[in-house]
Amino acid sequence: MILTVTLNTALDLTYRIPSLRPHASHRVTEVTERPGGKGLNVARVLAALGHEVTATGFTGGATGRAVQDQLAYTPGVVDALIPTEGSTRRTIAVVDTTTGDTTQLNEPGPAITPAEWSAFQEAYEDLLRSASAVALCGSLPPGVPVGAYAQLVRTARASAVPVLLDTSGEPLRRAVAARPDIIKPNSDELAELTGSHDPLQATRDARRRGAHTVVASLGTEGLLAENTEGRWRATPPHRVRGNPTGAGDAAVAGLLSGLVDGLHWPGRLARAAALSAAAVLAPVAGEFDRRTYEELLDQVTVTRDASAA
Amino acid sequence: MILTVTLNTALDLTYRIPSLRPHASHRVTEVTERPGGKGLNVARVLAALGHEVTATGFTGGATGRAVQDQLAYTPGVVDALIPTEGSTRRTIAVVDTTTGDTTQLNEPGPAITPAEWSAFQEAYEDLLRSASAVALCGSLPPGVPVGAYAQLVRTARASAVPVLLDTSGEPLRRAVAARPDIIKPNSDELAELTGSHDPLQATRDARRRGAHTVVASLGTEGLLAENTEGRWRATPPHRVRGNPTGAGDAAVAGLLSGLVDGLHWPGRLARAAALSAAAVLAPVAGEFDRRTYEELLDQVTVTRDASAA
Repeated sequence: MILTVTLNTALDLTYRIPSLRPHASHRVTEVTERPGGKGLNVARVLAALGHEVTATGFTGGATGRAVQDQLAYTPGVVDALIPTEGSTRRTIAVVDTTTGDTTQLNEPGPAITPAEWSAFQEAYEDLLRSASAVALCGSLPPGVPVGAYAQLVRTARASAVPVLLDTSGEPLRRAVAARPDIIKPNSDELAELTGSHDPLQATRDARRRGAHTVVASLGTEGLLAENTEGRWRATPPHRVRGNPTGAGDAAVAGLLSGLVDGLHWPGRLARAAALSAAAVLAPVAGEFDRRTYEELLDQVTVTRDASAA
Repeated sequence: MILTVTLNTALDLTYRIPSLRPHASHRVTEVTERPGGKGLNVARVLAALGHEVTATGFTGGATGRAVQDQLAYTPGVVDALIPTEGSTRRTIAVVDTTTGDTTQLNEPGPAITPAEWSAFQEAYEDLLRSASAVALCGSLPPGVPVGAYAQLVRTARASAVPVLLDTSGEPLRRAVAARPDIIKPNSDELAELTGSHDPLQATRDARRRGAHTVVASLGTEGLLAENTEGRWRATPPHRVRGNPTGAGDAAVAGLLSGLVDGLHWPGRLARAAALSAAAVLAPVAGEFDRRTYEELLDQVTVTRDASAA
């Protein structure tokens, strides 16, 4: 199975209203409720692709129960979430139906106790024994040490399980030094990590810091990947308009799916770029438009960069 | 005991952020979670005043469980909520900490089935047997007939239980004709019911339509009350600044508290006006500042209007 780690799970709510006006009262015309947090989005996409997935991380309170109730109805995802005393956070995406613009309100996560963090690490080590790959995704909730991902990367490497990391800021900086197999930053995260806004230079720098493969998601420009084998760009045939939330998580799912299916890098990148574009057409993160995905899979251009490192 | 009815219960969330900017992403710095819906606010204020209260209405889903978990920790409130298949709605008040301005997002309620509505009516009739007064509060969830409050008013009257109604629009219009003992509209609700923006004329008109006593809450101007015994104005000594959400619910609690304690109208109105002002100082609906309440109780001016009907 593929293991996904979401330390800061969320109950993702999407509210549709005609238009958000500060200091006014709004009747929400439509509410969507989904398990959230990047790792759970990745798990749902992987399950929809037919993979066996186990989701771990923390869950707590009534919101945590709602997340778990929904996961129970997601075929293919095994719930291995660890209980925490606090409540799983909510995120609220308020979508203006007139323009499609989205306002985001994110609750802070629950504070994790040292005992809970230890319980998680034990469970994680056990789960790695039957994992063919692991994804570490998203922000850290309060109470989890900033070096948490560095530690989880080292544990995965000690278990010889390929590890993909998708986070940002200081947790990313520390974990890169622990030599993860793959990191998947977006342009902002890559620039923050390396100080460079040039994707080529930043990608090279991120590798120098310890990441074996860097897959940078560059929005509508597709993916840029580099490792010791070469450098590639994966670009969808045309721009897809819609909701970009969850596109990065779909790309992570594509990379892992290709990895466990034994594809070479161009095949993995095509899968990731097609899934990412197909996720833009889905109304909520963790889902994708299957027909678009299947159509795009053969149309994504993967080019090998001649000036590869 | 005092019975409060909240057909459209809610999980009230208050989010504090520096300032709401449409189409931006916000980290919520502070989250407050409370049982909501006007009747539950009334119940919590009554319980804080030392009354025995039973709260009925509908509850469902994870949000309904969260409401009930919190009610279980509210001394004095007995939970007699009826289960519904759908989920209790959330309301979100986004407070800008820089200005105190509030943006409100209200989910629609769950659809109530005819069988659930029948189950509620049976439970309501049973509960009335041990009630000394009943408050019918707030909006109707989808599926409940628009004449619901008219029916509940008739049942209360048939059981000889004094009934206070606090709702708006068509449900109010229909229920007034069923001759409730007390209605407590605010200025907008009263104007909508009667077509008149003059509180004196509108109050008289609302009585002509069937309400025995009309207590109009006029914001910072206090309360205007009229029935066959006379007409009164209850005014706090000074304007209180804060969060007006829940001030009307506190006034309802004051009226019921005074009623079951056997106070005459001036005493009931003083209690309602003091509680209403003290609720403005509380950060969330259903709570009040006890010291302010006790101080204001003797300072509220209740004057009898000479030109009474």
